[in-house]
Amino acid sequence: MFQKILIANRGEIAVRIIRACRELGIKTVAVYSEADRNALHTQLADEAICIGPAAADESYLSIERIVSATIAAEADAIHPGFGFLSENAKFVEICQKCNIKFIGPSAEIINKMGNKSEARKTMMEAGVPVVPGTKEAVYTVEDGKRIADEMGYPVMIKASSGGGGKGMRIADSEDVFSNAFKTAQKESINAFADNTMYIEKYIESPRHIEVQILADQYGKVIQLGERDCSIQRRHQKLIEESPSSVMTPELRKKLGETAVKAAQAVKYENAGTIEFLLDKNGEFYFMEMNTRIQVEHPVTEMVTGLDLIKEQINIAQGQPLEINQEDIIIRGHSIECRINAENPNKNFMPCPGTIYEMHLPGGNGVRIDTAMFQGYTIPPYYDSMIAKVIVHDKDRASAINKMRSTLGEVVFEGIETNLDFQYEILNHQAFRNGKINTHFIQDYFE
Amino acid sequence: MFQKILIANRGEIAVRIIRACRELGIKTVAVYSEADRNALHTQLADEAICIGPAAADESYLSIERIVSATIAAEADAIHPGFGFLSENAKFVEICQKCNIKFIGPSAEIINKMGNKSEARKTMMEAGVPVVPGTKEAVYTVEDGKRIADEMGYPVMIKASSGGGGKGMRIADSEDVFSNAFKTAQKESINAFADNTMYIEKYIESPRHIEVQILADQYGKVIQLGERDCSIQRRHQKLIEESPSSVMTPELRKKLGETAVKAAQAVKYENAGTIEFLLDKNGEFYFMEMNTRIQVEHPVTEMVTGLDLIKEQINIAQGQPLEINQEDIIIRGHSIECRINAENPNKNFMPCPGTIYEMHLPGGNGVRIDTAMFQGYTIPPYYDSMIAKVIVHDKDRASAINKMRSTLGEVVFEGIETNLDFQYEILNHQAFRNGKINTHFIQDYFE
Repeated sequence: MFQKILIANRGEIAVRIIRACRELGIKTVAVYSEADRNALHTQLADEAICIGPAAADESYLSIERIVSATIAAEADAIHPGFGFLSENAKFVEICQKCNIKFIGPSAEIINKMGNKSEARKTMMEAGVPVVPGTKEAVYTVEDGKRIADEMGYPVMIKASSGGGGKGMRIADSEDVFSNAFKTAQKESINAFADNTMYIEKYIESPRHIEVQILADQYGKVIQLGERDCSIQRRHQKLIEESPSSVMTPELRKKLGETAVKAAQAVKYENAGTIEFLLDKNGEFYFMEMNTRIQVEHPVTEMVTGLDLIKEQINIAQGQPLEINQEDIIIRGHSIECRINAENPNKNFMPCPGTIYEMHLPGGNGVRIDTAMFQGYTIPPYYDSMIAKVIVHDKDRASAINKMRSTLGEVVFEGIETNLDFQYEILNHQAFRNGKINTHFIQDYFE
Repeated sequence: MFQKILIANRGEIAVRIIRACRELGIKTVAVYSEADRNALHTQLADEAICIGPAAADESYLSIERIVSATIAAEADAIHPGFGFLSENAKFVEICQKCNIKFIGPSAEIINKMGNKSEARKTMMEAGVPVVPGTKEAVYTVEDGKRIADEMGYPVMIKASSGGGGKGMRIADSEDVFSNAFKTAQKESINAFADNTMYIEKYIESPRHIEVQILADQYGKVIQLGERDCSIQRRHQKLIEESPSSVMTPELRKKLGETAVKAAQAVKYENAGTIEFLLDKNGEFYFMEMNTRIQVEHPVTEMVTGLDLIKEQINIAQGQPLEINQEDIIIRGHSIECRINAENPNKNFMPCPGTIYEMHLPGGNGVRIDTAMFQGYTIPPYYDSMIAKVIVHDKDRASAINKMRSTLGEVVFEGIETNLDFQYEILNHQAFRNGKINTHFIQDYFE
């Protein structure tokens, strides 16, 4: 059993993991950049080690420094959270060499799923439906154009290493293909040093539906139902919920079984998420697998009653999954709103600053995951998300009402946030009716 | 349906009710004393009406002022919360005369259950087990002594109007009976202007087990499982949990059925709690019925997924209960710790003051019900409870660990609290083993 875990992250997810460890009686080591000396995660952990300057490259993304800190602190394991090094196969390999348990899947699985073309191929072989598209990588405009012409427009051009919307472009017709391809490829080269592209049939007005899975070291895989993450702004999720309002029991069963099949196909281990696109006809297509805990994991925790971080730790310790598929009962409805420090009037530009007054609501069915506190200065170097407000109620309409009421109580004085924007989405008739897809924000708010 | 509800209370329960109303789309009216001008409940409600000076007699206990405020604000209904006027039958009668819906049972039921002798008689008639004791009221030492001698010591002497430990004494033997009776009766006369006493067999080392029930206007009664409130200091509950670690499925079924029978016997309406004493042999005895929401209702909400305040409002509006008994599934384990502003080194004397720094933890399975905020000055006039920390986890051991971890994060700078004392209880081996009874604090900490 682990005695001590180093948390290779910051912000609310670091706090979330520290709390789970405390509850399990495991000592924690925080790492922090010079900008995070006073951060909550630095204060809450049993030990805290400064790993470098504010720039993530020199601290939270530095494999060397994080591994050194782990060895110095004599921690048994590293929890990577999400972002930063959480899907870096090289990091996982080095951990293994240094006899540090990485709380997540193997480097091999991360590599396989991180490469979009390979993941796609693997899923097709496993019988998981994928969006019609190229099986092989595409490197040139000419090849791409030929494929797109055959496939029929609209098509989606995607960087193999892409993520968070980077290296992605839609081409509606032949005319715009060439430009779109070049821009996407350029972005990919700049961001990921990778010119590998592929082309897919573009699914119009899809919903983003993902399935949370847990897999232990002994081949047992269970799925914890779906999350609907269709409310996105420029491919960044804003609101997530579980269950999805569009699912029928039959579709839910089929989707869940497919997700389990996908995880089994790669002999997956630990927590993971299979993301699907769901089209208007109820057909779903594998999009990608995230080989880590996700920002939106709390909505699954609220409806299942499980603690996913503790499950991750237990799996990494070699414990078999205690729960069986038939024990998973989805109770009520949960919604998460991501609160970002950004200015809606300046195109949602990140807007760090000092929180001189803060009030966070509580009470029945309200959960807030945050690392903020009154007097805290948000540094400008990292992600702009400052809090996740999660609610749980008996059904979707009640959960929406609870979220509106809850957001109405949140106070962050001193910084700009997207709270009002979130409130507007919740009040939108189409959202309330569950008539959402990934273009919702674009269609109604841009 | 109610358009507007007046909340005849203050503190966390007022905030709790305001939130529930907001979520249901019902406007709220807060009432506040001059000492509560800046209180959270005053700030959160849609309207707020000052009803008098700090002294509760002239504000929160003033029937006239509260009813006047309700009429002035044109509210349809009053939610009384707990304490103050929540079990005042006269108040309920006046509400009815003024065409204001009181969210709770009728004056008749409150009267019947508020009088301990009558409640006892009613329950005996309904076949609910009661502690062996006098059926008729006792007024003199001589009568009392004769009865106690027959019954066998130890006996409990109780004031009919008593509550919160007032007017109660245990007599271990004939020698001390006379003194004990006189003291208890004197307390009752002073506190409740009532010299009516009764005498019961004293149950040694019992557990305090209570059952939450819901009853609609159409005779449907369901029970939501038990709460174990054995951890008390001088008859004041400190820690409550659900389910109780001592219950077998058979006992739980029998106790639940008995609670439903008790509620049906008085044609109960709205939320209520039947309190039982459970002895070492698994025999339980009716103690009293609380005809209102209770401080510890959140632990039931956490394990059932229901919202008891919303249920109360729906019942008062004449809606039939949507849920059936078979839908009630107890999931996991929940614990509540009452955090009081009091000084453990000065015999837990209330210790009001200004909170100049506050940090409340959040995250998975953590709920905090409070009306505190940074900069708030706790007035000295009211109850010393400042927050309820409630946790929910998969089992009792995990919930205890979560509570320890959570309390470790709570910061209230500027005031003394019982946080450390709560922490000590949680760490006590007997508590962790579930070996608790109502004498736990006395046995181990006094």
